[in-house]
Amino acid sequence: MLLSAIVSFIYKDGITLNLFLAGVSVLVLGVVFMLLSLKHKKEMNKREGYIVVTFGWIIMALSGAFPYMFTGAIPNFTNAFFETISGYTTTGATILTDIEILPKGILFWRSLTHWIGGMGIIVLAIAILPLLGIGGMELFAAEAPGPSADKLHPRITDTAKRLWLIYFGYTAAETILLNVAGMSFFDAINHSMCTLSTGGFSTKNASLAHYNGQPIIQYIVILFMFLAGTNFVLSYFAFKGKIQKILQDEEFKLYFKFIIVFTVISALIIYFRADVSASSIDHPMVFGEAESAFRHALFQVLSVITTTGFITADFTMWTPFLVVFFFGLMFLGGSAGSTSGGVKVVRHLLMIKNGFLEFKRTLHPNAIVPVRYNKRAVSGDIVFNILAFFILYMLSFIIGALGFSMMEIDFRSSIGLAASSLGNVGPALGDFGPVNSYATLPSTGKLWCAFLMLLGRLELFTVLILFTPFFWRNR
Amino acid sequence: MLLSAIVSFIYKDGITLNLFLAGVSVLVLGVVFMLLSLKHKKEMNKREGYIVVTFGWIIMALSGAFPYMFTGAIPNFTNAFFETISGYTTTGATILTDIEILPKGILFWRSLTHWIGGMGIIVLAIAILPLLGIGGMELFAAEAPGPSADKLHPRITDTAKRLWLIYFGYTAAETILLNVAGMSFFDAINHSMCTLSTGGFSTKNASLAHYNGQPIIQYIVILFMFLAGTNFVLSYFAFKGKIQKILQDEEFKLYFKFIIVFTVISALIIYFRADVSASSIDHPMVFGEAESAFRHALFQVLSVITTTGFITADFTMWTPFLVVFFFGLMFLGGSAGSTSGGVKVVRHLLMIKNGFLEFKRTLHPNAIVPVRYNKRAVSGDIVFNILAFFILYMLSFIIGALGFSMMEIDFRSSIGLAASSLGNVGPALGDFGPVNSYATLPSTGKLWCAFLMLLGRLELFTVLILFTPFFWRNR
Repeated sequence: MLLSAIVSFIYKDGITLNLFLAGVSVLVLGVVFMLLSLKHKKEMNKREGYIVVTFGWIIMALSGAFPYMFTGAIPNFTNAFFETISGYTTTGATILTDIEILPKGILFWRSLTHWIGGMGIIVLAIAILPLLGIGGMELFAAEAPGPSADKLHPRITDTAKRLWLIYFGYTAAETILLNVAGMSFFDAINHSMCTLSTGGFSTKNASLAHYNGQPIIQYIVILFMFLAGTNFVLSYFAFKGKIQKILQDEEFKLYFKFIIVFTVISALIIYFRADVSASSIDHPMVFGEAESAFRHALFQVLSVITTTGFITADFTMWTPFLVVFFFGLMFLGGSAGSTSGGVKVVRHLLMIKNGFLEFKRTLHPNAIVPVRYNKRAVSGDIVFNILAFFILYMLSFIIGALGFSMMEIDFRSSIGLAASSLGNVGPALGDFGPVNSYATLPSTGKLWCAFLMLLGRLELFTVLILFTPFFWRNR
Repeated sequence: MLLSAIVSFIYKDGITLNLFLAGVSVLVLGVVFMLLSLKHKKEMNKREGYIVVTFGWIIMALSGAFPYMFTGAIPNFTNAFFETISGYTTTGATILTDIEILPKGILFWRSLTHWIGGMGIIVLAIAILPLLGIGGMELFAAEAPGPSADKLHPRITDTAKRLWLIYFGYTAAETILLNVAGMSFFDAINHSMCTLSTGGFSTKNASLAHYNGQPIIQYIVILFMFLAGTNFVLSYFAFKGKIQKILQDEEFKLYFKFIIVFTVISALIIYFRADVSASSIDHPMVFGEAESAFRHALFQVLSVITTTGFITADFTMWTPFLVVFFFGLMFLGGSAGSTSGGVKVVRHLLMIKNGFLEFKRTLHPNAIVPVRYNKRAVSGDIVFNILAFFILYMLSFIIGALGFSMMEIDFRSSIGLAASSLGNVGPALGDFGPVNSYATLPSTGKLWCAFLMLLGRLELFTVLILFTPFFWRNR
C-alpha cells in the first residue's frame, strides 16, 4: 500500500495521503497482532497450518480493501472486499464499470493485489500445500528443487527466493517489452503484474481488446500468459540450462499440446465463420483473416486455460460450440506450480492415464497397473487424492451454481459464475461474460463468488477441511 | 412385435398385418443369424462379453425400429432408430409431436421397448456387468441373491427369473391400480410398463400432466416410480419378509433421504412462489395449495432421480434455482440394480464417504481408513473404479455437450441434452425441455443422443472399452 502511495505521489493523482493512511493502518494493526502473538513460540502443527492458510488469506483480503475504502474508489465494503479477494486469488473479476477514471494509485494497488497473490501461490503450491498433503500435490513437491517434504523451515525460503526472482524477472521483462511495443510505462507495469499472476485485471475498460490495433502487444501478453501458466520450477530449470528436463516433463508437454489443439480448433471456426460477429470490442476484429483469427483464438484459449481472464474478443458471442468449448476450458487450469487456478493439467493427465488404465484393470483384474508420471510410478494414495479432488471440485461447482441460481440468476450465468470463480478465471458466461462487470451481482452473490474463489485458490481441501467436524474434535 | 400385433388386432387399429410382418422379418433374420453361428460352440470369454452386450443392444435397436417403419408411423429411419433406442435404454425421449393420433398397436410397441429394456437392465446390472468387472458393480453382485461372480451360467437364469417375476408383478399391480383409479385399461398397461422400466414414454401428449385433474393417478405413478428406482433385490427381500435388510441398506436409506429432502426443497419453493407460472400443462396447477405443490414437487423429483422422465409440470419454467437444481438431479440416478439410469445413488454414497475420508487421510497420512458400505470394508479397487467411473461420466458429459453445440444448439440446450441422454432421463433443458419433442433436433443430433443413451445405459466402460486400442490388440 505504501508502494501504491509512492506511485500515487509520482503521478500526482491526489490520493497519496489516503493510500499512505491505509498502509499505516494495516501496519499498526499488524504490529498489534504481532505483539499479541509474541508469546506463542511453539512450532506450528499441520492442523494450525490449514487454519493459518485459510484465515491468513481472508485477513489479507479484508485489509487489502482498505485502499479502496480510504480513497473512496470503492466506497461499498462488499464491493471493496470482492475486488480485493478477486485480486489476491488472481481471479480478475471486477465490480468496476469504468476502470479508466480511477486514480493511478488505486489502479496500481489493484494490479499489486494480483502480483502479491501470485507470489503467495507460488509458495503455497510448491512448499506449503505438499506439506499439508493437499490435492495430491506431494507429487510436484518431489519435482521441486526445494523442500524435502519433511521440515517446513529450512529450504522453503530458499526455493521461494529463487522462484520469486524468476517471477520478478518475467514481470520486468514483460514491462519492458510492452513499453517498447508502444504501451505506456504505467499500463505496461500493471498489465505485466496481472499477466504473471494470471490475474486478469486491466487498466483499460476493454481489457486487452483496447490494443486490438496493436497485435504485437497482444503477442507479448500471449507469451507471458504462457510462461505464467507453466510450472515455475521448469523456468528455473530453463535458466539453469536443463532444457532436457523441460522437454521430458509430461505435464508441460500436455499443457503445450492442449494449447495448440484448442487454438487450432477455435482459429479454424473463427476463420471460416464470418457470421461470428459482435465479438470484437472497440477495434473491430477482422474475420476471414488468418492472422487475426489465429491471434484471437490463441489469446482467448491461453487466457482461459491459464485462468488469466484478459480478453481481446468476447468468446460468448462466438458460435454455440465455442461457448460450451470455453466453458469446458474453465475446468482445465494451467500447470501445477504456476500461478494459474483451476483443476491443473497434471491432475487431468493423471486422471486420463488412470481412466485408461482402469480399462486395462477391467480386462485383467489381477494385474497391478500403476499410473506412471515422468517415468515414475505414482503411489495409489496420490491418484486417489487427485480423483477425490476432482469429484470435490465438481461438487463445489454444482453447489456453487445452485447458490447463484437461488439469487434468481439464470441457468447460463449461474453455471458460468460457479465455473469461473472456482477456477479463478474471471470472465464467466451470460450476464457476467467477458465484456460485463460483476457490478450487477447482488451482495450475497459477490460474497458467494469470494468464497468460491478462495476455495478454488486454496485447492479445496485447505478450506473444506475446516468444515469437517473431526478437524475440530480430535485436538 | 407379435404381441403388439395381437394388441393391434384386439383394438382393430388397422396395422395388425404390418406389425405381424415386422415380427416375422425379425424372426427370420434371427433364425438366419442363429444358424450361421450354430457351429460356434466355445464358451464366451470376457472380451466377447463386452462386444455382445454393446452390439446386442445396437442390433436390438435396429430391429426394434421395424414396427415404426413397417407401419409408417415413423417413416424416417433415423427417427425410428432414435425412438427405439430411447425405448430400449429406458430414456423416454421422443421425436414424436402428436402421440395420441398413433394406432394402439404402435403405442403398445413403444411402451414394450421400455419394458423389454428394463428387463434387460435388471439382468445386466445384477448378473452381467459385475462379471465383466464394470463400474464397481461387483459390490452389488455380492449383495444380490444370485450369481457368485465366478460362473456365468448356473444361477443367472434363477436370479433373473425371480427378479422378472417382481418386475412383472409390479407392472400388473400398477396397471390394476391405475385402471381402478380411472385410467383406461390400455393407458394403464402402457403407463405401467413405462413406469417400472423408468422409461417415460406416455400415451398422452401431455405425459402425466394429462391427469392433473386426477391426483390419485399421479400418486400411483409416484409410488411405482419409487419402487422402480429401488434395487429390485430389495423388493425380493421384502417379499421374503426380510424388512430389516432393507432398512439397513445404506443405498436405500440415502435414496429415500434424497427424495424427501429434494421434494421438501422444491415443494416449499413452488408453494411460496406464486409467480412460478406457466409451468402447468393442460390442467392448471394450483399454486399456493399445499397438496398440489407437494405432489408436483415429489412427482418431478422422483421422475428425474429415477430417470423416468414423466412430467406433471414443466420444471424448466420454475425458478432459476429449480432449473439448476433439476439439472443437478439428472446426475443422481436411482439405485443400483434398479431399472434407472444415471450415476446411481450407491456411487454417490461411496464418493461422499471417500471424499470425507480423504480429509481424514490428509490429516493422518499414515492411517489406513477404508470406505465402509453396509458395514463391510469396500476394497480400494472398487472405490477406485467408482471414482474413475464418475470422472469418465463427467468427461462423456462435456464431450456430449460439445457435440450438440457443434450443431448450433445453444448452451443450455446442449448441456441439458448431454446430461439427459447420458443419464437416460428423457426431458432436457431449453429447446428440449419437458414439454418439447426431440423432433427439431438435426439427424446427427439424434444419433449423438442415441450414442450417449447407450453409453450411459451400459455404464460407460462396456461401450468405451471397445474404443481402446489394447482391447483389440491382445487377442
